[in-house]
Amino acid sequence: MNFNAIPPENPYEGCRATFDAADIVIIGAGYDGTASYRPGSRFAPAAIRAETFYSQEDYSPYFQRDLSEKAIHDAGDLDLPPDNKAAVLRMIYNASKGLLEHSKKPCFIGGEHLITFPAFEAALEMNPDVRLLQIDAHLDLIDELFGEKYSHGTVMRRCFELMGEQQNRLYQVAIRSGSKEEFAFAEAHTRLFPFHTRDFINATDELRDFPIYLTVDLDVLDPSLLPGTGTPEAGGIFFPELIEFFKALDGLNIIGADLVELSPRIDPTNNSTITASKTLRELLMIL
Amino acid sequence: MNFNAIPPENPYEGCRATFDAADIVIIGAGYDGTASYRPGSRFAPAAIRAETFYSQEDYSPYFQRDLSEKAIHDAGDLDLPPDNKAAVLRMIYNASKGLLEHSKKPCFIGGEHLITFPAFEAALEMNPDVRLLQIDAHLDLIDELFGEKYSHGTVMRRCFELMGEQQNRLYQVAIRSGSKEEFAFAEAHTRLFPFHTRDFINATDELRDFPIYLTVDLDVLDPSLLPGTGTPEAGGIFFPELIEFFKALDGLNIIGADLVELSPRIDPTNNSTITASKTLRELLMIL
Amino acid sequence: MNFNAIPPENPYEGCRATFDAADIVIIGAGYDGTASYRPGSRFAPAAIRAETFYSQEDYSPYFQRDLSEKAIHDAGDLDLPPDNKAAVLRMIYNASKGLLEHSKKPCFIGGEHLITFPAFEAALEMNPDVRLLQIDAHLDLIDELFGEKYSHGTVMRRCFELMGEQQNRLYQVAIRSGSKEEFAFAEAHTRLFPFHTRDFINATDELRDFPIYLTVDLDVLDPSLLPGTGTPEAGGIFFPELIEFFKALDGLNIIGADLVELSPRIDPTNNSTITASKTLRELLMIL
Amino acid sequence: MNFNAIPPENPYEGCRATFDAADIVIIGAGYDGTASYRPGSRFAPAAIRAETFYSQEDYSPYFQRDLSEKAIHDAGDLDLPPDNKAAVLRMIYNASKGLLEHSKKPCFIGGEHLITFPAFEAALEMNPDVRLLQIDAHLDLIDELFGEKYSHGTVMRRCFELMGEQQNRLYQVAIRSGSKEEFAFAEAHTRLFPFHTRDFINATDELRDFPIYLTVDLDVLDPSLLPGTGTPEAGGIFFPELIEFFKALDGLNIIGADLVELSPRIDPTNNSTITASKTLRELLMIL
Amino acid sequence: MNFNAIPPENPYEGCRATFDAADIVIIGAGYDGTASYRPGSRFAPAAIRAETFYSQEDYSPYFQRDLSEKAIHDAGDLDLPPDNKAAVLRMIYNASKGLLEHSKKPCFIGGEHLITFPAFEAALEMNPDVRLLQIDAHLDLIDELFGEKYSHGTVMRRCFELMGEQQNRLYQVAIRSGSKEEFAFAEAHTRLFPFHTRDFINATDELRDFPIYLTVDLDVLDPSLLPGTGTPEAGGIFFPELIEFFKALDGLNIIGADLVELSPRIDPTNNSTITASKTLRELLMIL
Amino acid sequence: MNFNAIPPENPYEGCRATFDAADIVIIGAGYDGTASYRPGSRFAPAAIRAETFYSQEDYSPYFQRDLSEKAIHDAGDLDLPPDNKAAVLRMIYNASKGLLEHSKKPCFIGGEHLITFPAFEAALEMNPDVRLLQIDAHLDLIDELFGEKYSHGTVMRRCFELMGEQQNRLYQVAIRSGSKEEFAFAEAHTRLFPFHTRDFINATDELRDFPIYLTVDLDVLDPSLLPGTGTPEAGGIFFPELIEFFKALDGLNIIGADLVELSPRIDPTNNSTITASKTLRELLMIL
Repeated sequence: MNFNAIPPENPYEGCRATFDAADIVIIGAGYDGTASYRPGSRFAPAAIRAETFYSQEDYSPYFQRDLSEKAIHDAGDLDLPPDNKAAVLRMIYNASKGLLEHSKKPCFIGGEHLITFPAFEAALEMNPDVRLLQIDAHLDLIDELFGEKYSHGTVMRRCFELMGEQQNRLYQVAIRSGSKEEFAFAEAHTRLFPFHTRDFINATDELRDFPIYLTVDLDVLDPSLLPGTGTPEAGGIFFPELIEFFKALDGLNIIGADLVELSPRIDPTNNSTITASKTLRELLMIL
Repeated sequence: MNFNAIPPENPYEGCRATFDAADIVIIGAGYDGTASYRPGSRFAPAAIRAETFYSQEDYSPYFQRDLSEKAIHDAGDLDLPPDNKAAVLRMIYNASKGLLEHSKKPCFIGGEHLITFPAFEAALEMNPDVRLLQIDAHLDLIDELFGEKYSHGTVMRRCFELMGEQQNRLYQVAIRSGSKEEFAFAEAHTRLFPFHTRDFINATDELRDFPIYLTVDLDVLDPSLLPGTGTPEAGGIFFPELIEFFKALDGLNIIGADLVELSPRIDPTNNSTITASKTLRELLMIL
Repeated sequence: MNFNAIPPENPYEGCRATFDAADIVIIGAGYDGTASYRPGSRFAPAAIRAETFYSQEDYSPYFQRDLSEKAIHDAGDLDLPPDNKAAVLRMIYNASKGLLEHSKKPCFIGGEHLITFPAFEAALEMNPDVRLLQIDAHLDLIDELFGEKYSHGTVMRRCFELMGEQQNRLYQVAIRSGSKEEFAFAEAHTRLFPFHTRDFINATDELRDFPIYLTVDLDVLDPSLLPGTGTPEAGGIFFPELIEFFKALDGLNIIGADLVELSPRIDPTNNSTITASKTLRELLMIL
Repeated sequence: MNFNAIPPENPYEGCRATFDAADIVIIGAGYDGTASYRPGSRFAPAAIRAETFYSQEDYSPYFQRDLSEKAIHDAGDLDLPPDNKAAVLRMIYNASKGLLEHSKKPCFIGGEHLITFPAFEAALEMNPDVRLLQIDAHLDLIDELFGEKYSHGTVMRRCFELMGEQQNRLYQVAIRSGSKEEFAFAEAHTRLFPFHTRDFINATDELRDFPIYLTVDLDVLDPSLLPGTGTPEAGGIFFPELIEFFKALDGLNIIGADLVELSPRIDPTNNSTITASKTLRELLMIL
Repeated sequence: MNFNAIPPENPYEGCRATFDAADIVIIGAGYDGTASYRPGSRFAPAAIRAETFYSQEDYSPYFQRDLSEKAIHDAGDLDLPPDNKAAVLRMIYNASKGLLEHSKKPCFIGGEHLITFPAFEAALEMNPDVRLLQIDAHLDLIDELFGEKYSHGTVMRRCFELMGEQQNRLYQVAIRSGSKEEFAFAEAHTRLFPFHTRDFINATDELRDFPIYLTVDLDVLDPSLLPGTGTPEAGGIFFPELIEFFKALDGLNIIGADLVELSPRIDPTNNSTITASKTLRELLMIL
Repeated sequence: MNFNAIPPENPYEGCRATFDAADIVIIGAGYDGTASYRPGSRFAPAAIRAETFYSQEDYSPYFQRDLSEKAIHDAGDLDLPPDNKAAVLRMIYNASKGLLEHSKKPCFIGGEHLITFPAFEAALEMNPDVRLLQIDAHLDLIDELFGEKYSHGTVMRRCFELMGEQQNRLYQVAIRSGSKEEFAFAEAHTRLFPFHTRDFINATDELRDFPIYLTVDLDVLDPSLLPGTGTPEAGGIFFPELIEFFKALDGLNIIGADLVELSPRIDPTNNSTITASKTLRELLMIL
């Protein structure tokens, strides 16, 4: 399979399976072209690999599992043009489709949230029953932003339309920001669990029989913990609550995932990158 | 009414009522002349407007209200001399007095905490029964600092004296720092609710029949969430607890307010400014 | 004339002429969509205005002139979508065309270097004889970048084509970076003055009879002086040499200009913005 | 007693007892030579003193005690060679031994975690029954790091061996990171209380009859609160939980202590230093 | 002599003479109360001592002299109230007067430029013939700033008046910023050497027979070299030119000096402090 | 040949020859264990590769040569223990020796200046006539630092001894810092060209008949241009002067080289890394 990707010679720590042997494939999708405020998530995939090469353990004490127990391949980064949105969407779609066709679970590292659209589009084509599970600070349900249909602020609206506008296929967890219109839309059309993960965790049984595509917008974390993100929102969750969320998903049928909106250079301490990388480690434990 | 203010051509996001139509008037008071440690709160009003122009929603999912439902005018910033404390106090007093006389609720953006004194002085003259409600990390009850009576560290002592030293008119919430003498003074003279908002929230009935002037010192927030403040104190509250505090005040008769001690340039991520701005949005919801 | 512009919070210091009275019109064009490395020049126009409001003198001791002696209007910023390059190019073209038709000299604040293309396109239509004078670290003569024809790295190639590929209409001054192919192209087709301004200054007579569009890429300055730029190149010029360059142009017929590639948030000291603003002041002196 | 120490520019705020009169002696041990990732804890002792000179209260509202009620001497910093580990270990051992022989409680400010080894070694010699109480993010139980036996990552393994490999003499509290092998080792050999302090607090009776050496690795705090540390781990405790931990120890027989792994220059806000200093103040309250 | 100063236990590197034995006395005057833009020079004296303790040589290869050859005492910092300008002026005046009466040469470390006024006032009283030599980016000849007569922007005007408005007693070197009015004033009343030191160096004979008070505003250096200053101005001099300036003064009768406007926290690299400290070392060589 | 090196994520831009085909081999030696002030040069090799992957041209307009015209292999980084100086020296020596035996020119990226010792030791063994050419801010001729013989501050003294203390085999160019003793030593024993490169450039004929090992300490550059270094010294050279120095060496017989003392994380703009990388590109042009 040809990703047109730039391979990393030092893959994400602990993920050294060959492509063929892998169940899960990590792939960077560092596109940030629609960022309306602070761009920079383009730097996330490389930053995550570089910052954690020496410092991160392969072992999760939360799951008492080691990355070495999973078959994970790091395929490197898609070589995305910064200023051609259509080409970017097509390249991510192709990567997602190709991986799913090879029975690999794609795990994308964004980039901004728009990258979920093409990744999910392929997942939906292969799994018409798939549920989209979003943990995020923002609803991302705007219809148009700056006159554009495809944007980090509209991506969940587009995904919703893709699913034939069927109610309750889009799960929105821990949301704490949006316009009045977006919240009204969510009330009418999506499974909304605002502010916390608690209520969602109690409802995970609903998802037991369905394939799930999981998108983790890192700005769901409180900006104190992850300052390096484009549109921070006070009032987020902290790491223990995120772990509880992941634990609630353990055993469910997650067929693909992404981790988006880390903007490493906003945070001069590099700690946002380190936290994002640890989040990725835990996410890999439940894939 | 003439504020001697520099008007913003782009007011605080969502606050575009004319002065005449407004119930609430935002006004910047960027004075930081008594800062004994790290100055810089002078930059707060302009930073809040600039940083939130593109990124902040007008809608509060906590109150399920939109700024567009309120009549708010942003009058810009008072043109305060950095090195003439007496003139600064007079100019803020005049602005507060003028707004109250026009039946507007003043909402000041500091600057340091000393700005509360003249703003409250005018409120007390117009409302002799007013209670002063302070949410803060510090008691600010020192009698003199560097030989000065008027300072960010003495401001609540001066306000207390202004109220004729009547006990229990000054409410001090979530306090976690002060000298031994200040804590002894608070025990004897003020309504002190240290460390948390919980006990105060249970006591809000006491305030039901009184006009309230509310001063929010942003360093009440944990420094992890708001690193950009002059004298940070670990052990602060987080955003959800601040929202609960605001909800407990909803429906009470708040006649004026201020938001002080954001020092934007201490925080290179700008996230402190973004959090302060969101705090202001929620504060406006209960004015 | 309708720019679809957002009026400035406060206009650029010293530039308070009305549109009608103005000879020169400043307008922000904060587009950075093709940045292949570090984006962020979108923040330049607002940063320049905000940072210099209190700190910059209106008087140039270099030219012994004051901004108050010029008739300059600051029209604010074009409201450009971050992710629609075609729309951005059209909006800048319209602004440039409209200003020139009203006999105003446009002075754009970028944004990235691509904004020169539409601004110059309008200038060329109105003045077929116009010379394009570029002071820059980079040649910007690539034919395609990431498969794209319109980019900060290709902009001078596109401008050259626009001029009917007539030799020696593009002046490239103080250049110190480019690929082998770009330098070969420049040798063959443009008036290239590498590394310094000296040789160009001796050749300014060539430009005496022509209208000039001047584009100042701030990365021509040494990165020590202006660290806040997307693609810094050691070995640049310092401020006195830039002033000599401007002095050599004084009295020539400059019909429009731009100042591009300040990326304010890369430089935590804000000094890059302050230097860019001072550069703008001096540039205005010769328009 | 001759420490070979450099006296402090100004002693730690509130600690002005003479050496002879002191019960507790603060001494800086700014060694960071084995840091495998981000060095810089060498700067911690001086940073703590400098940053808190003007801003920190001597009074703890948590314990309702004042530093002036304790007899504390600040002896300054050991003059440690950055690149001679054996000499460093010897110098710290000598300081610890000397203080204990003079019936002073040593309170070391690191530096990295390896400094605990020589400090504890002296404490163990003087008190064969001593328990080692570690509050930390990391187990630090590796056997060898980069082929080295003495390192910040192996320090607790070495201390364990020093105690004759007697089980349950090493208490490890709030741990959230380590390799699979380290966690297996801890399960077998140490008193491990992962993630939280709650379970340990319920078990403090076990320690009632023993002398205790307390080592506080500041990375036990969440990196949102203390970003300035070499190997941050999301999911840490916050200040109120640390205070509860200290309160649970109040009245126990702590014979020596250290505070390690602040790396001040990682955090451009300086707030990590301020939080570390406040932690030190509270730690001093229970010595 | 009682300075009311806080003595440093680690003086400025290489300056360990006792007060009585000293010819030169260093004293910090960290006042920044009139800063109209970016405050923070209050942190300069402590920062200079702390940053250079380990890293700075005592030897100047420019003068081939060692600090150990001079008798210099570091008296620590005046304990100045941040918000009482009158008290600050009095305390600095007293320190300057006292030192001169004890036949010591005062060398003040600011703080902002206003501190020159009281220091010079005492020097003028003791030496009616004294010339004031200012090397600076700014003229500082405004008559009033924000309605205030005493400010960093008016300080040279006030000093000029103090000298009985006698022409050509104020030397202003390397100036590159000011209002039109200030430059007109300078043309009429002072010895102005704009932009460079060259012309001044050729004129030093004029000063041969007079006592000199030297004030070094560090913003005379290019902001690329010293970004940590309140009001940076591109186009400054670099270190070699400053050394040439100092060499030209060598052998002249300098009776007092100051070094002002370092604002250490603006520069996250700390290099501005290191450069200021090296400047101080060279300045001490010619006192 | 086995380096025990970690292969690079992506090799230094433009250097993709195989080891066998290569004339020049780049190898990272990120040791900073003797840093007495600010450590962090360990991060330099990885930072240089990461930061320049997208942004640096392969073409030098100064030499009008392209990296593609040279046969360069990037072997990645030596896996050096941070706290075992003896092992580090041995590993670097082995790498240098091995490369020279394979007739490759080693080009080390430090790390601190001590790495020059083992690299040069191997070069001297293979070429007894070799001259050591050092361009640097500091003499590095101390005999012992913190009681240690091998340190960044003693490295040139040790190299001098290695050459049998033969005079004038050590060339020291553009030096501007050292103790009185070091300068006396240099006057007596080395070819010293202080402050500038000019005098050395006129003397390059002396080197025409000898093999040369070239060590470039990046702190020779002015700290304005390269703030990211451990011990910055104002008064350094700028990029054009460094290019003139390299041009003067072009055609001489350089048999090995290193580039040391970049400390990337000191400079939050990353520009120091970008400048270091460009310096490496130009250095490669003359190997």
